[in-house]
Amino acid sequence: MAIHLSSRRTFLAGGMALAGVRRLPAATARLQDDLKLGVATYSFRKFTRAQMIDMVRQLGVIYLSVKDVHLPYNSTPKQLAAARKEFADAGLKVLSGGVIYFEEPGRIRSFFEYAKGAGMPMIIAGPTHQTLPMLEPMVKEFDIKVAIHNHGPGDRNFPTPQSALEAIKHMDERIGLCIDIGHTARAGIDILEAIRQAGPRLLDLHVKDLKDTSVKGEAVPVGEGVLPIAPMFKLLRQLNYQGGVMLEYEVDADNPLPGMQKSFAYMRGVLAGLRA
Amino acid sequence: MAIHLSSRRTFLAGGMALAGVRRLPAATARLQDDLKLGVATYSFRKFTRAQMIDMVRQLGVIYLSVKDVHLPYNSTPKQLAAARKEFADAGLKVLSGGVIYFEEPGRIRSFFEYAKGAGMPMIIAGPTHQTLPMLEPMVKEFDIKVAIHNHGPGDRNFPTPQSALEAIKHMDERIGLCIDIGHTARAGIDILEAIRQAGPRLLDLHVKDLKDTSVKGEAVPVGEGVLPIAPMFKLLRQLNYQGGVMLEYEVDADNPLPGMQKSFAYMRGVLAGLRA
Repeated sequence: MAIHLSSRRTFLAGGMALAGVRRLPAATARLQDDLKLGVATYSFRKFTRAQMIDMVRQLGVIYLSVKDVHLPYNSTPKQLAAARKEFADAGLKVLSGGVIYFEEPGRIRSFFEYAKGAGMPMIIAGPTHQTLPMLEPMVKEFDIKVAIHNHGPGDRNFPTPQSALEAIKHMDERIGLCIDIGHTARAGIDILEAIRQAGPRLLDLHVKDLKDTSVKGEAVPVGEGVLPIAPMFKLLRQLNYQGGVMLEYEVDADNPLPGMQKSFAYMRGVLAGLRA
Repeated sequence: MAIHLSSRRTFLAGGMALAGVRRLPAATARLQDDLKLGVATYSFRKFTRAQMIDMVRQLGVIYLSVKDVHLPYNSTPKQLAAARKEFADAGLKVLSGGVIYFEEPGRIRSFFEYAKGAGMPMIIAGPTHQTLPMLEPMVKEFDIKVAIHNHGPGDRNFPTPQSALEAIKHMDERIGLCIDIGHTARAGIDILEAIRQAGPRLLDLHVKDLKDTSVKGEAVPVGEGVLPIAPMFKLLRQLNYQGGVMLEYEVDADNPLPGMQKSFAYMRGVLAGLRA
């Protein structure tokens, strides 16, 4: 029943967003993308929410994962509602918020209240081994999904998708993974294998590319590095993956748009090649 | 015998260019492209040869079709040799020159001498019905290929690939087509069918994309329009097409690089998707 309601809410939210999209110029809404290509707004961390929205529209993307820099945790309900309206008016659909770091048990509920007020159906989460079990009752109470984000070799909590998968395997099915393919590759893990292992627990993806897969592997525009983007997209389509494929562009923080444009052009080309 | 010599010369020229490429930073030479993606330098018509070479390198491309703005027809043999050296030193390989318009019978020989001096193994040609037959003896004498470029609805001579194909079908096999997919689509012709019909007579391609295929269809970055880029690349790979796939970017003449970067990212994505 909870799942049914959740699906229905997502559907209604999608309908609103699509109605908004129809008012956009054709070039800014690429509804032909068969995977849900989107943007983790951390990519625009040096910009205001209004600037971020403008650039996301230039990318022809409608799916967002919103970072707190664009919607502060201490926002009032009125401010959260205003932000929701801004996203909807721009034809954008918020798939999630995050990464939200759950370090203090005492703040957990406030983050779910924030997500609820912001209309986020999912939280991309960085919990600790201590806080992770405390998220499950919140997921049930708020009917908000949680996707654990792995943070690579430097992450003391969940450096790899497998480490997170192991920790959640007996939890509510609305708790899953956001596999960050850059951090995963830098941890020496095969991305395709990690996706297969996650199966239905894969709820979101942070996409990027790396010049090499060493621990300090440098990020580059998608398609210019060594990560297996095309085989991964092929696998995601085979798995009928319905989650977001969110570009988290970590380079060129002061001027990310050109590299992000190349990244989306490449990803759309891959999808066109896979469909041909 | 003539064909044998031609192949050998092409091979040697290729070896020189590849030796140059090895000196480039890895990021600027995408030898993994399985079709020969390149640039028709008409795209950089507002820039000097040196600026053009710099931007082509930024695109990670090695194949060029050189327009006379970057190598004037009245160049001396010494100037032509200097340009050849500049291209080779930059790791670039000249596949052809053009489009060269053969309007006056009296100038035909001089264009072949120009191409020979510039090391161009092929001329992308805009002949008239009168001059086309005069090109065949030159092709035999100079052992330089000719690819007839169709120029769309406004072209009084060869508006479509089929009209050129009909005119050359009994000529030397080194005379073929450069199908301009934009002009072809604006003439109401199916690009894939035109490529199939041309078969081994297809020697070169001018790639672009259009917002729509009306007679006045506006050019856009490749991947952002309606032309069937991915199905075309799939067909070209099936046909084992060995010619150039040359981006002729007609928009943003004052600042073409961003749109060209998106175009190459998209085309490389398509190839990656087809390979996956």
